[in-house]
Amino acid sequence: MAAMLRGSRCLFGRSCKHVDFAFVSTRSMASKTPVGFVGLGNMGNPMAKNLLKHGYPVIATDVFPESCKEVQELGAQIVDNPADVADKADRIITMLPSSPNVIDVYTGLNGILKKVKKGSLLIDSSTIDPSVSKEMAAAAEKMGAVFMDAPVSGGVGAASSGKLTFMVGGAEEEFTAAKELLTCMGANVVYCGQVGTGQAAKICNNMLLAIGMIGTSETMNLGVRLGLDPKLLAQILNMSSGRCWSSDTYNPVPGVMEGVPSGNNYQGGFGTQLMAKDLGLAQNTATNTKTPVPLGSLAHQIYRIMCARGYANKDFSSVFQFLREEEGQ
Amino acid sequence: MAAMLRGSRCLFGRSCKHVDFAFVSTRSMASKTPVGFVGLGNMGNPMAKNLLKHGYPVIATDVFPESCKEVQELGAQIVDNPADVADKADRIITMLPSSPNVIDVYTGLNGILKKVKKGSLLIDSSTIDPSVSKEMAAAAEKMGAVFMDAPVSGGVGAASSGKLTFMVGGAEEEFTAAKELLTCMGANVVYCGQVGTGQAAKICNNMLLAIGMIGTSETMNLGVRLGLDPKLLAQILNMSSGRCWSSDTYNPVPGVMEGVPSGNNYQGGFGTQLMAKDLGLAQNTATNTKTPVPLGSLAHQIYRIMCARGYANKDFSSVFQFLREEEGQ
Amino acid sequence: MAAMLRGSRCLFGRSCKHVDFAFVSTRSMASKTPVGFVGLGNMGNPMAKNLLKHGYPVIATDVFPESCKEVQELGAQIVDNPADVADKADRIITMLPSSPNVIDVYTGLNGILKKVKKGSLLIDSSTIDPSVSKEMAAAAEKMGAVFMDAPVSGGVGAASSGKLTFMVGGAEEEFTAAKELLTCMGANVVYCGQVGTGQAAKICNNMLLAIGMIGTSETMNLGVRLGLDPKLLAQILNMSSGRCWSSDTYNPVPGVMEGVPSGNNYQGGFGTQLMAKDLGLAQNTATNTKTPVPLGSLAHQIYRIMCARGYANKDFSSVFQFLREEEGQ
Amino acid sequence: MAAMLRGSRCLFGRSCKHVDFAFVSTRSMASKTPVGFVGLGNMGNPMAKNLLKHGYPVIATDVFPESCKEVQELGAQIVDNPADVADKADRIITMLPSSPNVIDVYTGLNGILKKVKKGSLLIDSSTIDPSVSKEMAAAAEKMGAVFMDAPVSGGVGAASSGKLTFMVGGAEEEFTAAKELLTCMGANVVYCGQVGTGQAAKICNNMLLAIGMIGTSETMNLGVRLGLDPKLLAQILNMSSGRCWSSDTYNPVPGVMEGVPSGNNYQGGFGTQLMAKDLGLAQNTATNTKTPVPLGSLAHQIYRIMCARGYANKDFSSVFQFLREEEGQ
Repeated sequence: MAAMLRGSRCLFGRSCKHVDFAFVSTRSMASKTPVGFVGLGNMGNPMAKNLLKHGYPVIATDVFPESCKEVQELGAQIVDNPADVADKADRIITMLPSSPNVIDVYTGLNGILKKVKKGSLLIDSSTIDPSVSKEMAAAAEKMGAVFMDAPVSGGVGAASSGKLTFMVGGAEEEFTAAKELLTCMGANVVYCGQVGTGQAAKICNNMLLAIGMIGTSETMNLGVRLGLDPKLLAQILNMSSGRCWSSDTYNPVPGVMEGVPSGNNYQGGFGTQLMAKDLGLAQNTATNTKTPVPLGSLAHQIYRIMCARGYANKDFSSVFQFLREEEGQ
Repeated sequence: MAAMLRGSRCLFGRSCKHVDFAFVSTRSMASKTPVGFVGLGNMGNPMAKNLLKHGYPVIATDVFPESCKEVQELGAQIVDNPADVADKADRIITMLPSSPNVIDVYTGLNGILKKVKKGSLLIDSSTIDPSVSKEMAAAAEKMGAVFMDAPVSGGVGAASSGKLTFMVGGAEEEFTAAKELLTCMGANVVYCGQVGTGQAAKICNNMLLAIGMIGTSETMNLGVRLGLDPKLLAQILNMSSGRCWSSDTYNPVPGVMEGVPSGNNYQGGFGTQLMAKDLGLAQNTATNTKTPVPLGSLAHQIYRIMCARGYANKDFSSVFQFLREEEGQ
Repeated sequence: MAAMLRGSRCLFGRSCKHVDFAFVSTRSMASKTPVGFVGLGNMGNPMAKNLLKHGYPVIATDVFPESCKEVQELGAQIVDNPADVADKADRIITMLPSSPNVIDVYTGLNGILKKVKKGSLLIDSSTIDPSVSKEMAAAAEKMGAVFMDAPVSGGVGAASSGKLTFMVGGAEEEFTAAKELLTCMGANVVYCGQVGTGQAAKICNNMLLAIGMIGTSETMNLGVRLGLDPKLLAQILNMSSGRCWSSDTYNPVPGVMEGVPSGNNYQGGFGTQLMAKDLGLAQNTATNTKTPVPLGSLAHQIYRIMCARGYANKDFSSVFQFLREEEGQ
Repeated sequence: MAAMLRGSRCLFGRSCKHVDFAFVSTRSMASKTPVGFVGLGNMGNPMAKNLLKHGYPVIATDVFPESCKEVQELGAQIVDNPADVADKADRIITMLPSSPNVIDVYTGLNGILKKVKKGSLLIDSSTIDPSVSKEMAAAAEKMGAVFMDAPVSGGVGAASSGKLTFMVGGAEEEFTAAKELLTCMGANVVYCGQVGTGQAAKICNNMLLAIGMIGTSETMNLGVRLGLDPKLLAQILNMSSGRCWSSDTYNPVPGVMEGVPSGNNYQGGFGTQLMAKDLGLAQNTATNTKTPVPLGSLAHQIYRIMCARGYANKDFSSVFQFLREEEGQ
């Protein structure tokens, strides 16, 4: 799950549309076979709609029946559970909140793998632990199916407008088939390597993003305390080696930029608790691979403390507000 | 003191030359009055030479007589001490290693303020604690002189080619006069605000730079451990919200970019101990202004530990090497 | 796995033997039924021997046949795998390196649960993630068996002398039965609560221990830099509010105390990589329960960096050496 | 300035009264010469009273006239400024909030050194940067006077009851003379070494104290989240290697201990902002001596953030509350 951002700014870069791995399918719509879709939440819903828009028959399910209404009205066939999706479609996309949901949807009692057909292509766009992606791939392989991880960047806005970025891990020879579907929902589809590397890329990006955001917030706060005008400081940083996405595209200081959450009391955007979740994944993978990530780890702790102190639903750039002296102190 | 970087990359941004506050003096060289210069080290030497090149008579001094030879041969007049410089020039530039040197050169027994003339313009390009800049300004004011802080970004290479960036703090009405001299030595001269804000801007930039560099190193290391190709990961980050100067211009992973210290065993560039010094200044100003800087503080500690473990003279991007598992572990 | 410490000092406190929950079984040795033992490593071996010494017939296994020799010569019966242990004994103790081993030994193809008898008591003394303990307990319950977690503190020395401390989680009504066996191997058997709380107590203690050790090392190093004699500083801390186990019982500065690893080039004791493992468990449980642990997390990162820099096998008090300036710098 | 603690608990240890460097002056009260006292705040006031109680004539001053009333009524002579104190007394004690005040009181326009007599003994009990203590000592020496730093531990309560601990730095041959006065106000007078080492000892103790307190808070919070009873967890830690002053004497979790601030909504005790000040001093001395203090530095940042978030006046053990999830989250 990633950020809903206004205008042309998105968590996964301004220049996305120019990169050469962007791809638009040109194959005929006539003979399209059904695509399964599991998980019709804030992200899954607009993604499934985009598949429908591109002419794919969609077989869908969700644990919450009301989540299914919208796509049903648009022509999707709703079934009872993931196993039934697998029974009717040999290409399936899943979009779920976290690792346990993914495990259940694939390997549970009514899971996809209970009825999956040989040769099926299973694409998971959830953001989860890469080791779970690998487990799912191994389980799928036993059933003769192919599993790929393809987490997204770009938020609800990008999901609606079909401008997500997909980072894809899995067998390279299956990438073209996956790309055919993913390009209906995204502007960029990047092949990252073996299963789990899509997750790895997503997690790595968000860890560095969090570090940059907290670092920018500390720096801007310190500069203001030292007598610098925040707009001027941002301008200096952005022409200098301190430059980063958080300083030049999503500045956390109210009044420095237009159209970002800092200008709107940190409403909208990418919530602190979602960032904390992604940093938790980064921390777990770092711990499990014995990789030192001192700043990533501290960034995780700071967002965790913010969640405990009432910032869970504010945009993650509200760390500037968290660090700044309260008025009247 | 900042980084010597190859090619077009410099710590203070690639696009420096395009910004509109760049300025080249066009006034006649005929009537130029002498300029004093104190501190002829690695940075001061080429800076003084650029003043000579622009036709300014230079009156210079340094605690090490041998440091004076080069500029003397080029026509500078060498005197015994800073007081004697102040006796012969009413515009003086100082470029010194750290706060105690600045205090001594200005307020010491043979300091500038002992013989400074009323109305003199004193420009300090050292990187020091902004509160020391303020003290010097107050002491200068008592003598009827004007003090400005103008720390530089850009390293020895930029000093030689006259492409430094100066961040200037002090009375706005004196800025034009300061700029006349500084443009002989730099491509950008940025007015930052009251005395000390030049230092503040420099310190803020370098703190965020350090955070970005360590964050990039952790992220790249984690990504590689998770199976990503480092070049591909850099490419993904650079089109995404993880993008920063350390990922797209000065990548710390050997083999990802050409012409940066990571490709040359971390030789050259901006030494870890110089970064540790700047982070120490950032820490001190943050402590003294009671500003929380959790990541800046941890970045400082990491560079401090690196200095203790033998990395003092390697480029600051060697933090990637410091964090990576030793071979054979 | 915990520390091997000389003399009377152990990681789990000097005063262990005085606490009132220490317990020595007094029931008759005559009718003792066999006890199973899986995992005859550095810790498991002396633990199994102590069971034999107390008159219990032991049925044992280990993946490395040579590990079984010693206890076999002392009368233990060696079988092929954990399932066979479960076939012959209804009380089983397991002592394994990490979570995956525990999962395999209990739920693997030849795992305990394949042949476990109804009503069996399964005690796991490994240090693992509490959530794995809970999973094992649930799996055991399905087979009609009882699982308890009982990680130890005290190291190989304490294992040999039967002076371990056991922190026990599980159904309270089974605690007496567990204690009967555990008191053969330990001086203290503490009931902590539901399944997993034994692990929780162990992990919590070791996290605070790591924080105290690094904190003591930083403090001692800073004090020495500021001109204090290390012995005097330790004395002052130990009569003051800075006092902790690492300052008063296991001081990391060479020469301050006798009989601790700092006096022996950080040989012996509790290895840095074992501490890093326990801190990884603490980190994972904190991440999974969304609990902020800023210092615990940084302690983890520091020990992780130390492992990467060649300190893996030195005692964890070698963090003092890691932080101290190298000679010649 | 340190903690006011109830009952027998004090920041500087329970066992203070047993150490052999405690000392009670036995010399005749008859011939006592006046003692100067500068700084009659919360700490200075009761200290000066104890000097009066021991029969010393006191010559005192404070920038706030109303602070002088109480001691004046008890017989102290109040003068206009520190210089006048120095004019009338050759033994002077100073107790001031921070470094700038100390610099002013000693070297300012009406400072002690303006009228100090040769051979005078100047004792500063403020908690300040050790390098400032050294400067003051050098300045005093030029005037033929002796300066010693003697910061205290123990808070207002201990100041009132004459049970402070003094950590003394300065010439060893002057220690006996200093001790004569300090024992009127304190139960322990510890000689630490050259000038500045008293400050160093105080700063080191409080840095380790802060680390231990935050570490204990994280650990207790994690343990409770993992299902442990907090009293039981404290009991386990305190018999184990996690034991520290914050866990066994000043536990931050409400309900675990009686008579500590955690049981009284973190009122009283040692304020978060005072701890932040001491950690700032530790940070500055560490930065200036290039000593890595990663946990000390993070502890500083955490207390700094707490000050910004409204915890400035709560006891420093309120970090437990700061880290714990708010209700309703």
